[in-house]
Amino acid sequence: MTAGTGPGETTPPAEAPQPELRRDPITAEWVILAAGRGKRPHAPGPAQPVDQPDEDCPFCPGHEERTPPEVCANREEGSCDRPGWKVRVIPNRFPLLVSGANRAGVERAVSPDRRPALGTSEVIVDTPVHNQPPWVVGPHQTRAMLEMYRDRILALKKAGRTTYAHIIRNHGAAAASSLEHPHSQLFGLPFIPPTIDVELDGFVFAHPGKPGCVLCDIIEEVEKDGARVILASENFIVFCPFASRLPFETWIVPRKHSLRFEKCEELPELAEVMTTVLNSFREKLNDPPFNYWVHTYPLHGESRPYHWHIEILPRLTLAGGLELGAGVWVNTVSPEEAAATLR
Amino acid sequence: MTAGTGPGETTPPAEAPQPELRRDPITAEWVILAAGRGKRPHAPGPAQPVDQPDEDCPFCPGHEERTPPEVCANREEGSCDRPGWKVRVIPNRFPLLVSGANRAGVERAVSPDRRPALGTSEVIVDTPVHNQPPWVVGPHQTRAMLEMYRDRILALKKAGRTTYAHIIRNHGAAAASSLEHPHSQLFGLPFIPPTIDVELDGFVFAHPGKPGCVLCDIIEEVEKDGARVILASENFIVFCPFASRLPFETWIVPRKHSLRFEKCEELPELAEVMTTVLNSFREKLNDPPFNYWVHTYPLHGESRPYHWHIEILPRLTLAGGLELGAGVWVNTVSPEEAAATLR
Repeated sequence: MTAGTGPGETTPPAEAPQPELRRDPITAEWVILAAGRGKRPHAPGPAQPVDQPDEDCPFCPGHEERTPPEVCANREEGSCDRPGWKVRVIPNRFPLLVSGANRAGVERAVSPDRRPALGTSEVIVDTPVHNQPPWVVGPHQTRAMLEMYRDRILALKKAGRTTYAHIIRNHGAAAASSLEHPHSQLFGLPFIPPTIDVELDGFVFAHPGKPGCVLCDIIEEVEKDGARVILASENFIVFCPFASRLPFETWIVPRKHSLRFEKCEELPELAEVMTTVLNSFREKLNDPPFNYWVHTYPLHGESRPYHWHIEILPRLTLAGGLELGAGVWVNTVSPEEAAATLR
Repeated sequence: MTAGTGPGETTPPAEAPQPELRRDPITAEWVILAAGRGKRPHAPGPAQPVDQPDEDCPFCPGHEERTPPEVCANREEGSCDRPGWKVRVIPNRFPLLVSGANRAGVERAVSPDRRPALGTSEVIVDTPVHNQPPWVVGPHQTRAMLEMYRDRILALKKAGRTTYAHIIRNHGAAAASSLEHPHSQLFGLPFIPPTIDVELDGFVFAHPGKPGCVLCDIIEEVEKDGARVILASENFIVFCPFASRLPFETWIVPRKHSLRFEKCEELPELAEVMTTVLNSFREKLNDPPFNYWVHTYPLHGESRPYHWHIEILPRLTLAGGLELGAGVWVNTVSPEEAAATLR
């Protein structure tokens, strides 16, 4: 795995096109696109899961007693914490956010700048199969996983104590996955996270004085142009965004303007689309490490414009002092080239 | 190297204190502090430089012809592009930002959301010694490096075409360094980068209705409390910030309220301080990969409050979907514990 900003390349600069700046149409932030610099990012072989045989795996069927009691599961009724599930949800053993029921130990820390990390940390075990992510198992398993995402968000919303539900998937050790068995995570956050805050502002300010939704406009432009489209289905469009922050950044966006993922009625189709896209990553980029997350509207209220979507960020380059210290992303593969590779 | 957000830990949760939220006093963003979770981040051995013998190194003395002609150097007069230098500055062979002189190839791309990446990409070779960073060579070398940082920022300012000068140091392959030979980088950016923009706003809004500088206030609180202080010298204080984003995040702050690094008159003392702090990282944390950067005021104007400082971010954990997708940092070592370790 190599960095995008280092001076260590060996091919002569004459071969490289001049870098350009591209402004993200939602956040208004500039990204440096320095494509074709004689160095392609490369996956460090298959996504390098944490090496863990399934007999040691706490998420495998038959090992249910090794995890905290399950929150819920897609399974036959009445067989809690036993095999027979398709997707299983458990509390994170080391929660980053703790539920109200566990508040006692955290009450000490309350001040304006310091407070208990109240919220939810759940692990969604995506599939019973130890070493095959749902998109390898098939669309039916991806669908079961997506339906569980929806159900857990709806449960958080019903409980009423959480501000934002953030669903993530870390794939591969280099993308911060710490267990091989395929799993997603749900964080119920007690605030609107910064990235969503910036996006919500972006939806208001992206088109000053114009009505409509910036992401609906983007879908229209992306389809008209075609160069950044990876896949287009009846209800979804998959593309590399104009100001992609990293090589092969990919968004899955519903055509229907809608605030919230959990209201999506086309999850079977989304499962087909995700299965195709994630297998394309696997085949064309040698199973790279990646993260994806669902960007959806905060759990309560609906007064602001938004349009939910899924963002997939392969981890083929490392962030350095320019990204972390200045917040400036450097992308060494143009989104047009990335989409052509993944189509 | 392990992640902070994964569910893969094996010690029981009862041992871990409850996580808390801490709000950064400048940016007002919340960080999740989930310390003592039975898993300490660990350096993956010494900072794992790119393996490169010095005979292949383009930055070693005697190999000056392998780089573009030097921009400037701390050396005897009249011996350009030959050995005899203490610090040497060269253009990045694969610049992320290109100077006006190279504009021809980029003019094609001008639109409101797409423009040539005009600016500066320089490599500052910190020392002639291939495998010893300046803080190992000694304070005299660190001072020469810092003086070169200052001189290059002043040169950019004088040239008048750049908005922001961003100086970074990536140490170790996991921190995105691509060559073993110690080097820093200067990016002359044509915009105020997002991170600085957020800080500049923070200096205005952190203390609504109160006069004074939020970072001056922080220095006072940090010294009074003492628990997060790593080192205090006549003109500088080094500490782990209250809402540290990652384990062992460290700031070096001048006591004197000042907008700009390049106006600092105490660089010899700063060199002593940096040498001590970076050797403490090396000794106490087994030479971890890290990034540091100088946060200073934009090159032109002085109408807004600010207080320059250096931020050091060790790379002991990996960012996942919570950090990248939500902008929420997770720190598994409390800054109080981190400072006690580094003192």
